Amino acid sequence: MNAIIVNDRSYAVPDHPVVVITVDGGDPRYFRDALERGIMPRLRKLLDDEGSFGVGMSEIPSLTNPNNLSIVTGVAPALHGIPGNYCRLPDGSLELLNDPKYLRAPSIHAAFQSAGIPTLTVTAKDKLRLLLAHGGVPSVSVERAAGAGIPQYGIDDVETLIGSPAPGVYDPLASHYAMRIGLAALRAHPELRLIYVSLTDRVQHAAAPGDELSDLFFSEFDALLGEYLEEGCTVAITADHGMNAKHDDRGEPRVHYLLDILAERGVPVHEVVLPITDPYVKHHGALGGFAWLHLDPEQAVRAKEVLGGLSGIEEIWDREEAATVYELPVDRIGDLAVTAAADTALGRSREDHDLSQLHGNLRSHGGRHEQLVPLILSHPVVGPLATRFEAGTLRNRDIHDLALNRASGEG
Amino acid sequence: MNAIIVNDRSYAVPDHPVVVITVDGGDPRYFRDALERGIMPRLRKLLDDEGSFGVGMSEIPSLTNPNNLSIVTGVAPALHGIPGNYCRLPDGSLELLNDPKYLRAPSIHAAFQSAGIPTLTVTAKDKLRLLLAHGGVPSVSVERAAGAGIPQYGIDDVETLIGSPAPGVYDPLASHYAMRIGLAALRAHPELRLIYVSLTDRVQHAAAPGDELSDLFFSEFDALLGEYLEEGCTVAITADHGMNAKHDDRGEPRVHYLLDILAERGVPVHEVVLPITDPYVKHHGALGGFAWLHLDPEQAVRAKEVLGGLSGIEEIWDREEAATVYELPVDRIGDLAVTAAADTALGRSREDHDLSQLHGNLRSHGGRHEQLVPLILSHPVVGPLATRFEAGTLRNRDIHDLALNRASGEG
Repeated sequence: MNAIIVNDRSYAVPDHPVVVITVDGGDPRYFRDALERGIMPRLRKLLDDEGSFGVGMSEIPSLTNPNNLSIVTGVAPALHGIPGNYCRLPDGSLELLNDPKYLRAPSIHAAFQSAGIPTLTVTAKDKLRLLLAHGGVPSVSVERAAGAGIPQYGIDDVETLIGSPAPGVYDPLASHYAMRIGLAALRAHPELRLIYVSLTDRVQHAAAPGDELSDLFFSEFDALLGEYLEEGCTVAITADHGMNAKHDDRGEPRVHYLLDILAERGVPVHEVVLPITDPYVKHHGALGGFAWLHLDPEQAVRAKEVLGGLSGIEEIWDREEAATVYELPVDRIGDLAVTAAADTALGRSREDHDLSQLHGNLRSHGGRHEQLVPLILSHPVVGPLATRFEAGTLRNRDIHDLALNRASGEG
Repeated sequence: MNAIIVNDRSYAVPDHPVVVITVDGGDPRYFRDALERGIMPRLRKLLDDEGSFGVGMSEIPSLTNPNNLSIVTGVAPALHGIPGNYCRLPDGSLELLNDPKYLRAPSIHAAFQSAGIPTLTVTAKDKLRLLLAHGGVPSVSVERAAGAGIPQYGIDDVETLIGSPAPGVYDPLASHYAMRIGLAALRAHPELRLIYVSLTDRVQHAAAPGDELSDLFFSEFDALLGEYLEEGCTVAITADHGMNAKHDDRGEPRVHYLLDILAERGVPVHEVVLPITDPYVKHHGALGGFAWLHLDPEQAVRAKEVLGGLSGIEEIWDREEAATVYELPVDRIGDLAVTAAADTALGRSREDHDLSQLHGNLRSHGGRHEQLVPLILSHPVVGPLATRFEAGTLRNRDIHDLALNRASGEG
């Protein structure tokens, strides 16, 4: 079978459409709950037939940009260059990492497209689109669907293709519209061989497994999954990260504001960088489970003492250690890495975060406890990854390997 | 080039001797310190010429048995089956994991030996020898060298081969005797192609980087490294785990005794298992940076609350999460995994640990903060692993891939 090597991994070229779907914030607990309560009959049937369900790990920080890039490149942030949604660069500037100029590795899709294999990338959030489309991948986002086409496939207007106007990016059904774009494009262009659909975690930030909104989301997801399967696709599903409640029983957010805490204890820092920061503040108010501290070397020990003593703070690593332990690019991270417990979020300063905008109680991600993700394949897992799949030690960055190499045994 | 596939990885068969040395407790800080202060001139010259120095990660728990097995199998404990030096099995029995019956994956050495490629394994500690020798690998340990031979190579008596009696297993020079056995065997049998030498952390438990004993250890190590290089070997060096001081400025051990703490707070548990437990109690008194709790499901939340609030306790994971996050066999771990901060050790009950036997202040390992290990190769790193080597994201389980595939570019 014909194969293409991208970032030192080999991917078989499929003779039928392969679709990889990243459920933003798609914690395995949503899927398990929905399967148990019968909310996802199509997925249930798939798994009862010959499909595979496993869990694996996301990258750390467990955020959208680093993980989407790992999923489409097959390598860690240390190699693809995107360690967060946001970071402080060596020149001191604070940047949203949405620009392809920050990429250090090509995507599988770009390599396939260059080789003449038709691909398509659909995102809910436009912030991801430029990164994922880099290298000539035809792409479109729900957020900017109005008036947009996919010229490479002669599609002039996406909304006309779907037959309905695109929902807003905060609409709970924005994700499903993204799935519909992929489906409609495939029906119009059955020659498509690799489709990537990346959803939004609007619902997951607002609703726990079993909540009404979650059920609505996964029920509709399930129906659309069925449509992809009926088109004869191989389908693989993963998540960029999980999701945890970060509030107490009364709904009060449980947050450590690091700049305030350190100032109170007399530890000066240059900057607290929250790598979850992105344009979608109604999701999380920029509060997540991970923070970078930029500080002078002589302050590191004191900062570790102060923060290490707090309940709800877990790991604190020096820059070089963090780069190795979390597989991150050493020049785009902080001097210290701070991770939070499952039920705790990290903030900058209390005055920086406007929680009144949240869609519900604070649910967020970014730390180690949101690292578990589902790995779902419409077929049995075979080949060199099968043992690791069974053992639960694969990562979301392996999802294209699972999807594309399932028949060939190549890996 | 001829290659052998073991556990889904391909290893080139070398045309000259390849030696992999695991420095037990060989934290990268020992090497960096020794290199900076000129204690290791041979390694310095090697790195100035064409050698490679990097860091990577060990398995978690950062202990001898899981990591030695990962190093010789190329896979995680989830696949090779050894998640500790010690564990509680599903039937409730507590077992030292030194018996090959616990192994679930073959070693690279066993596969090479079966294919007619001469191998040899030398350990300092005998506890490791049976595991590493499983599958017909010729082996000998320093601890049991007296009266022992290597019959596969017609060596009747190891002490005669070396020309001096073997030191005791607690002798600071026991590791060097292991290196001498490998050297002497190679000189007597130049047809050897793959030699594994696994040292002991007797010195690292007792002495920090820069201490007199450490300097003695690494100076002698360096001289023996030079002898291997003069024999024309490719040499690769890694560690099974790092090492951290677990005491305060006055030398008092900083320990959380989990059984005592939980009893005091009224949380019943079935067992606290310290997977560092092994026959070498003078090294660590069975105190390390990692613990398993076996308890009834309804106690898990309370146990997490109690322990999660303690300074010096970092991550606490449920069994299924721990299996995925740490890549461990789910049936041989506890219901909760507890990890300690760099400066803290975890104990069972105060009365279970006799610290009067320690060789010095408490220095130990087992947790995340002892996960960084050196990855040293006598040659440039080429091929598919080169980018990840540069980025610092390889693991000690990749060391045979680095050593054997360095010339071929196979991976």
